[in-house]
Amino acid sequence: MREFSVTILGSSAALPYKNRNLTAQLVIHAGRSFLIDCGEGTQMQLTRLKLKGMRISHIFISHLHGDHFYGLIGLISTFHLLGRKDDLHIYGPPALENIIQMQLEASLTTLVYKMVFHPTQSDFPETIYEDDGLTITTLPMIHRVPTTGFLFAEKQYPRHINMEAAENLNVPYTCFGDLKLGLDYTAPDGTITSNRELTIEPAHPRSYACCSDTLFHEPLADIIKGCDLMYHEATFMNAMAEVAVAKMHSTAAEAARIAEKAGVGKLIIGHFSARYENLLPLLEEAREVFQESYLAEEGKVFQV
Amino acid sequence: MREFSVTILGSSAALPYKNRNLTAQLVIHAGRSFLIDCGEGTQMQLTRLKLKGMRISHIFISHLHGDHFYGLIGLISTFHLLGRKDDLHIYGPPALENIIQMQLEASLTTLVYKMVFHPTQSDFPETIYEDDGLTITTLPMIHRVPTTGFLFAEKQYPRHINMEAAENLNVPYTCFGDLKLGLDYTAPDGTITSNRELTIEPAHPRSYACCSDTLFHEPLADIIKGCDLMYHEATFMNAMAEVAVAKMHSTAAEAARIAEKAGVGKLIIGHFSARYENLLPLLEEAREVFQESYLAEEGKVFQV
Repeated sequence: MREFSVTILGSSAALPYKNRNLTAQLVIHAGRSFLIDCGEGTQMQLTRLKLKGMRISHIFISHLHGDHFYGLIGLISTFHLLGRKDDLHIYGPPALENIIQMQLEASLTTLVYKMVFHPTQSDFPETIYEDDGLTITTLPMIHRVPTTGFLFAEKQYPRHINMEAAENLNVPYTCFGDLKLGLDYTAPDGTITSNRELTIEPAHPRSYACCSDTLFHEPLADIIKGCDLMYHEATFMNAMAEVAVAKMHSTAAEAARIAEKAGVGKLIIGHFSARYENLLPLLEEAREVFQESYLAEEGKVFQV
Repeated sequence: MREFSVTILGSSAALPYKNRNLTAQLVIHAGRSFLIDCGEGTQMQLTRLKLKGMRISHIFISHLHGDHFYGLIGLISTFHLLGRKDDLHIYGPPALENIIQMQLEASLTTLVYKMVFHPTQSDFPETIYEDDGLTITTLPMIHRVPTTGFLFAEKQYPRHINMEAAENLNVPYTCFGDLKLGLDYTAPDGTITSNRELTIEPAHPRSYACCSDTLFHEPLADIIKGCDLMYHEATFMNAMAEVAVAKMHSTAAEAARIAEKAGVGKLIIGHFSARYENLLPLLEEAREVFQESYLAEEGKVFQV
């Protein structure tokens, strides 16, 4: 099965806290590397965790609060200094483009690689990336500034050929393409063999939903229904639910309620307020609602 | 004697390298805290080294290459989140103001404290800060973008009263102010006592010259003549002198030549290229020219 993993680079809300860095996640799918958010110090985290930062081809910025993007200009700049050759695609709110350009201009820098900026909107879900095996769709969040989450969804895999059955019926290789798509096989003599007899069910297409900063918003559960792995911010505990509403953030229990309602496989909670030195109470609060809850901890790798 | 120290927060050129952070220095003089440059991760360095970042009242940015200022917006933002009350003064090239403002606007942030921006120019030395005991003057550097260094110079201390002599002559306290300024004492009967008999030589006013990114430029030695402590960038070793010229940086030996010519007390070299894992050869190269050379190492404190 293709690799599909999420590595936590940072889990701290608003400001760095002791060993907790600012928000960033590395998503790897089938050899391709994607970065979600890029708080200050993200490039150092990539180095510290011995991850291949230069392989990142697409960076997705959820919103323009500093803890989610102040490390971006440094990463762009480091790629330049290291002589990057591959294009770099950056997705984020429109104002981000000018923020990057102004800083490059101030240092008279003309990047040695091509950077392509793709503005995002947060009004409705939109597929912003597609390759042969994956789509990435924005998820509108409810926050103090325009904010999106990101849904990484594998495409339906083609059906696998049942080689033994195919050889028994002398099915020519040239028909394998149609079989993989689910079509039946018609032999030269007109005999029809159903696809089910000649192919095997492919792996279930997996999905990862990254729900960045957001107010608790139940309809989100419908959009990400049944996804295998979900990250949902959990800045506060329920005892501070009112503060969470005022700041348009969520609590650990609320994150778990979304996970439970959406029937996800696993939940990662993160974006912890610096008031929580010990994160176990947040984990316990989430697990009371949704057992398969885990903490976003620096360096932790989650398989989707 | 008043505290006058320089703490190295980062020493890496261009990009962070293993345990070497990007350029920043904390200067403390008589209880006041000043920051010179603010590369990405500076706020984490302040925390890691248990330094009181919030006490920083003035930040001086030498130039707009990212390794010298990409951590500034994060620090400004963290001060805001921590509810800073004191004004924050920022000095740097004019374009910096808009870079800060755009990022604050993108996050709809109105700072809870007053930030005052002071644009600098790099054509001639200019005194940009003054308090009762210190002046800070820009030092024009020669680099690819407008760049200044900063000279922190203590003002001449007032003379100390020789209490024994003053009491013997019944000098009233009201005359101590004039004595401290160096004036002679005239008794009620008209007798004049020379200032030298009633006062003691004050401590020598100390100075710290921070010479940020610059091409080797000998006239700099005249401007900073006799300063007690000098920081001078030493991005390369002499074997790469041509690259140093092309990139408008200096070598360790060149930094030491400035120190030697200026007759400074001590030299700190820093802003090391990531090609040098081991810094001892750079130190040796500098010490061959100027014995009192030291490496800018993260967390190291130099007394001026």
